[in-house]
Amino acid sequence: MECLWLQDGALSVRQIERPVPKAGEALVEVGLAGVCATDLELIRGYMPFTGVLGHELVGRVVTADADPAWVGRRVVAEINAACGSCPTCRAGRQNHCPNRTVLGISGLDGAFAELLRIPIANLHAVPDAISDEAAVFCEPLAAACRVTEQIRFEPGQRVALLGAGRLGQLIARVLAREPVELEVVARHAKQVALLARAGIEACGQDGLTDGWADVAVEATGKPAGFAQARRALRPGGSLVLKSTYAPEAGPPEVDFSGLVVDEITLVGSCCGPFDAALDLLASGEIDPTDLIEACYPLADAIEALDHAGRPGAMKILIQPGGSSR
Amino acid sequence: MECLWLQDGALSVRQIERPVPKAGEALVEVGLAGVCATDLELIRGYMPFTGVLGHELVGRVVTADADPAWVGRRVVAEINAACGSCPTCRAGRQNHCPNRTVLGISGLDGAFAELLRIPIANLHAVPDAISDEAAVFCEPLAAACRVTEQIRFEPGQRVALLGAGRLGQLIARVLAREPVELEVVARHAKQVALLARAGIEACGQDGLTDGWADVAVEATGKPAGFAQARRALRPGGSLVLKSTYAPEAGPPEVDFSGLVVDEITLVGSCCGPFDAALDLLASGEIDPTDLIEACYPLADAIEALDHAGRPGAMKILIQPGGSSR
Repeated sequence: MECLWLQDGALSVRQIERPVPKAGEALVEVGLAGVCATDLELIRGYMPFTGVLGHELVGRVVTADADPAWVGRRVVAEINAACGSCPTCRAGRQNHCPNRTVLGISGLDGAFAELLRIPIANLHAVPDAISDEAAVFCEPLAAACRVTEQIRFEPGQRVALLGAGRLGQLIARVLAREPVELEVVARHAKQVALLARAGIEACGQDGLTDGWADVAVEATGKPAGFAQARRALRPGGSLVLKSTYAPEAGPPEVDFSGLVVDEITLVGSCCGPFDAALDLLASGEIDPTDLIEACYPLADAIEALDHAGRPGAMKILIQPGGSSR
Repeated sequence: MECLWLQDGALSVRQIERPVPKAGEALVEVGLAGVCATDLELIRGYMPFTGVLGHELVGRVVTADADPAWVGRRVVAEINAACGSCPTCRAGRQNHCPNRTVLGISGLDGAFAELLRIPIANLHAVPDAISDEAAVFCEPLAAACRVTEQIRFEPGQRVALLGAGRLGQLIARVLAREPVELEVVARHAKQVALLARAGIEACGQDGLTDGWADVAVEATGKPAGFAQARRALRPGGSLVLKSTYAPEAGPPEVDFSGLVVDEITLVGSCCGPFDAALDLLASGEIDPTDLIEACYPLADAIEALDHAGRPGAMKILIQPGGSSR
């Protein structure tokens, strides 16, 4: 089957053997897959990975021997394939299982392919009300929803969101539903326009008052974004780290004594609840489809990732069955 | 009056003018004062400060014009002198008032002196059941109690405490009262012995299993302690930063992407509740007096701070009225 293969930092569209599901796994035909900043970071060597990239998808179940009722269903899939039996899994923290593989990121071939194998336990059925174009956002929208699991927002709280890129746009839409005062810092006119379409006003990089925010959410993936989030925060505030940082950018500069004296809380935030994301998509409360900038057939996947890496690029999709943009 | 004066990183015992309380302030005669790692860091230039060092004290009120009922009372004093009228103060976060001075740390002469002035609002009366030698620990014990305000410990949780120095010993005694599994990493035999007297078993630096802890508390003030705390923590765990870091040690190395992927929460923790500390001292639930290693008269205060800086040194006291060790 055709796939986008990453090896030693080099991409190639190539034919590989059709995946063979293991016990408890389903075989899923990929309908649409989304490109994420993490894909671009993996190419740059953020983590060593050899295999098929891609971890945002909507597809249809081809086989599911352990539970054939799934066959034919339209699905999205959580990306952490946990062992299910270690102490971490037994404590209900499967997303942090030390033995896990991660779809298109670590030890498990991903979604930029015609087919993939994934544990049936990771599947969520997609309600008919959700189009493929919306459902493919389920994974990053769930990651955006994770913030509201970790921070209990109180009415009138001031929240600053740094970054209005692919993930930031989704976080902005999630935060706009909370009873808070929201300021979103956007860099590109396109980002500002997309926020406006969702009824969210953006401010420039100088639009945030130092110490204004009770909570700051860092979604730029850039050390400068961290510094800006820290400055925006009042003492006793919380800074949610929603982005990983590319190694070549270096880590953000952090005044640790300042974190202690000002009693700042840093909250690492990663994968989130698919159920909540599917509810938001099914009800139409969040419609992410206007974030789609282009859709490439799998044969042009290298071009798709190149496009996704351009400054200000929004969501780029890859369609394994597609034949033209 | 006699005091220990810090200027341009140099200490001197000198005579200065008797402090004159401002409106709402009391004049307090210092009975005993304690030396803290922050005092040593201020000498090394952690923050620019010129004046009288010292922020841990027990004393007796000499004058309190705005509320004469305080006169003659034995007191301890919170260190943040807030303005009381800014938005931060009005929100109940006086400890983070941007206009505040801080006793012996920033803009307000401290406790290594015969007398000091401090807002009456900062005073807490010391119950008769608490000796001066115990009451002088109120400020750092309150800082230790702050951890239990910020982290809601659940039965059976695993807590790792890194550092068993002056502050670490107090944190250990506070954590030992929680319904948790506690591991304290101590470096010096003296620290281990003091923990044992409080019924707390210590382990060596290699005694912590990677990923064991739900919560890690960093009280070493050293970048290596941060690294050890991070390693001890399970994904999804919380790392409480209880120490500031001396500038010359450089900041700890932090893998920020790891914080995101493992969803680690860093919690900066500073000053704490005096009422809770006084309750623990008055009931005898925590008796910190065995941590006292030496008591110097104010005339020998430079020697006292030198002593406090020796590796493994425990609590050093300064007694303004004292004439001999």
